Parts: sequence; C-alpha cells; structure tokens
Amino acid sequence: MKDFQWPIRVYYEDTDAGGVVFYANYLKFFERARTEMLRYSGFEQDQLITEQRLIFVVRSVQVDYLKPACFNDSLLVNTKILMAKKVSLNFEQVITRNEEVVCKGDIRIASLDANSMKPKIIPDFILEKIT
Amino acid sequence: MKDFQWPIRVYYEDTDAGGVVFYANYLKFFERARTEMLRYSGFEQDQLITEQRLIFVVRSVQVDYLKPACFNDSLLVNTKILMAKKVSLNFEQVITRNEEVVCKGDIRIASLDANSMKPKIIPDFILEKIT
Amino acid sequence: MKDFQWPIRVYYEDTDAGGVVFYANYLKFFERARTEMLRYSGFEQDQLITEQRLIFVVRSVQVDYLKPACFNDSLLVNTKILMAKKVSLNFEQVITRNEEVVCKGDIRIASLDANSMKPKIIPDFILEKIT
Amino acid sequence: MKDFQWPIRVYYEDTDAGGVVFYANYLKFFERARTEMLRYSGFEQDQLITEQRLIFVVRSVQVDYLKPACFNDSLLVNTKILMAKKVSLNFEQVITRNEEVVCKGDIRIASLDANSMKPKIIPDFILEKIT
Repeated sequence: MKDFQWPIRVYYEDTDAGGVVFYANYLKFFERARTEMLRYSGFEQDQLITEQRLIFVVRSVQVDYLKPACFNDSLLVNTKILMAKKVSLNFEQVITRNEEVVCKGDIRIASLDANSMKPKIIPDFILEKIT
Repeated sequence: MKDFQWPIRVYYEDTDAGGVVFYANYLKFFERARTEMLRYSGFEQDQLITEQRLIFVVRSVQVDYLKPACFNDSLLVNTKILMAKKVSLNFEQVITRNEEVVCKGDIRIASLDANSMKPKIIPDFILEKIT
Repeated sequence: MKDFQWPIRVYYEDTDAGGVVFYANYLKFFERARTEMLRYSGFEQDQLITEQRLIFVVRSVQVDYLKPACFNDSLLVNTKILMAKKVSLNFEQVITRNEEVVCKGDIRIASLDANSMKPKIIPDFILEKIT
Repeated sequence: MKDFQWPIRVYYEDTDAGGVVFYANYLKFFERARTEMLRYSGFEQDQLITEQRLIFVVRSVQVDYLKPACFNDSLLVNTKILMAKKVSLNFEQVITRNEEVVCKGDIRIASLDANSMKPKIIPDFILEKIT
C-alpha cells in the first residue's frame, strides 16, 4: 500500500489557551488516520477484535512538533508503514498544512491477543493488505 | 450527606483558543466530582460494577455557563443530590471561582444492571450513604 | 437554511472504559457541526473574530442521552436553528445512527463583541444566510 | 530541585473503549505535572507570560507505554529536569502505579518570547529554582 492520506480539520476542542493545537491532540489525529488506513484496507478494528481476537496497542511514540497548528486549520495526515514484523508495526505519520510540515510522529504498535493480551502474530492476509 | 466539594485546577488541556475552558470540559469536572463524592461515601465505581453489577450512566444534563473559567484558575465543584429515586439520582453541581459562580449543572443519572444494561434499583446501603 | 447534516465517526479518543462515547464528547460533536454549518453558510469563525469582531459563545446546553454510541459507529449530526434573536441563537441538534436517535441537544449561543465580550448584534447578512 | 511528584487519579474521561487510559492522555498527565512543578518552584505560567513574556512550548516527546493504566487507578508522576540549556529544558517523566512503571516520557521544552515566539533565554532566577 502506498502512503495513506487523511484530512483533519482543527476545531475548538483541539486547541488550547495558547491559541494552538494542544500537544497531546496530535496523537488523536495520528490515531484517526491509522484507523482510517486500516478501514481503507478493509479492516474494521471492532471486527478484528471480535472475529480475529486481534487488538493493536501503542508501545511507543516519538513526536516532533515543528510548527503550531491553529483553530480552523485544514491539515493532512500522511501515514505509512515503515516496518512490519510478526507482532509489531512501525508507522511514520506526518501532519502537513499546505505542504508545510506541522508535526511528525514515529509510532510503534504491538499486535496482541484480545483475550490474553499476549503478543499475537499478525495474520498474513492483514499484512498483505496494509503493507 | 451534606454538599460535597472537590477542587479543580484548570490546565492547558481544559482550555481552547478562545482562552477559556472549552464548554464540554465542565462535564469532565462534574464527573470527577461525582466520582469523588461516591468514593468519599465509600463506593468505588469499579467495585460497584464487579461486585454489585451496578453502573451509573448519565441520562440528561442541563448546564448554564455564567462566567468563563481560564487557564490556571482554581475552581471548586459543589455537588449535592437533589432527588434520589429507586433507579435514578438528580445531582445539582455548581462550579465556583472565589465564590463567584462559573457554571451550574443539573445532571440526571440512571442506575443500570452492568450486564443487561436494564434499570436496576439502587441498593439501600448505597442510597443511605450518599443522600 | 434547511437542516444541516454533518457526519461523525467515533474513534477511540471519544469512548471511555464503559465501552461507549463519554458524555462530554457529544458536545464536541455538536460544536463541530455548528462550525461546519457556519462554514457551509460562508462564515469562518476565525474571520468573524478578526473582521467582524464577532464571537459566538455557549450560554447553556440541555442534552438528553437516549442510546449509547460506540467505537467505530458512524453518526450523523442534524443541526437547525430554532430561534434567532438579535444577540442569540438557539440550536436544536440531534445525533442519529442509522436513523435511531442517540442524543439530542438544545444549545443557546450568545453573540459577543470579541474585544469587549459584551453582547453584539448579529449582522443581518449573517442572520439571513444561516436562518 | 529534587524530583517532583504529582498524583493523578484516572477518571472515565481518561479511558477508552479498550478499558485503559487512551495513549494521548498520558501527555495530559505529564503536562499537569510540569505545570505543578513550576508552581511548586514559585512560577505561575500565566504570570510568566504577562510579566516575563516567557512561554514554554513542547518541541518533542518520546513516550514508552509499558503497562496499561485503568479507570480509578491512582498514579504518580515523577518529574525531573535532565538538562537545562539557555533556551530549552529536557524533562524525564515517569508514571507509576504502586511503584510499577506504567509509562515513561522524555519531553523537550523550548523557551520562547510570548510576543515574537522566537527563542528567549530562560532567566537565571527561574533556572536556579527549577534545576
């Protein structure tokens, strides 16, 4: 799969009294984009849990805040999978506004069994679609 | 039980680009205060779910926003139960800053069976403690 | 203007440990829909502030929670202006999922001067477009 | 200054449908603790902005999620300044529950002029107090 792009509009809920997007809220934008990338590939996370007993959890994030985003800004989240292993995925996610980079994230996701919460191998039919 | 008071500090996360607390976030402050009122009365909501199969859910809210609260403000949430019925509780919650009323809420809570999600009578030993 | 409809997808950020949308977050959905209704009518709120010195603030909300919305749900916010006065607007906002009503809100908005924060008459060219 | 400790209670607002604290919300906990550390050292951020024209903004975060925190958990945020330079501060923040590490963050903060938003040297009287 090529890079996946998802648009985000900045609402009041996303901003803080500094007049810019609160730093934690970019992680919401990243998560929405990953969810939509999976959906675009044909996978609904609620179905993955109930039908495959597969749940994705975040193990680590590294985020660089380069430019502040503001109320009413129209942003684009570019998401790609840098590395896919048996039980983990590394995403690179870049948020831009008019092609200017606002924020960059490296997000490491683990694949777990939804019952035992132990590592669970990502099925090939999922890996093939999303990578 | 008399009125229950719970302090709230306003952090960046609570504010928006208008420089004031975002209107949805007062509902977080109300919820924290109701949780702490229950805890003060001896009830932990996670234990109520697992041991009594009792869960409280919000049925309706009516909120008046009177004065804006700002970053770094020190607020006080005053909570009292106006009416307790078999399967519902009516809370009056008032948020003040230096005795000036910032925000007032009337919150109606239903008591449900945590499995069936049907109405469940609030046990007397709980009602006696919290009212 | 007729009713304005805005779609909302429920993400993890919107839900809580009860498995449903946290009650405060419906107010975020309402606010997004009001913002998009203004945008659809040709008004950007950041421009209204800088060019018209006009800011809209929430004075009161009344919300009924009828059915829980869950992770991954696809919701629709239906927004209409019930009453428009010189310095206030009353919105009726209804959130549905597959035509089932999830949540209803009555939201009263005041129009303020963005500098003095005193009531400011909503200009006719705005009222004509949005009502 | 020694390590600074700040307690956090996990409320419904902090959790998601996975039953655990949503990954973005740990950044809220970190920010509250940094704000309280400054306050404990004698500095209110709103006064720093108005009186010193000094604002702190986050430049980057690196967060490892080690154990999930759950509704009603009582957490402790341990905050220390690893490195203080002229125009930046590096914080190490560790969240524990009963001495078990839940989450670790390395947060880099820049000091800016609140008007120009250009780098601004942190005054010595502040550095001396917080380091």
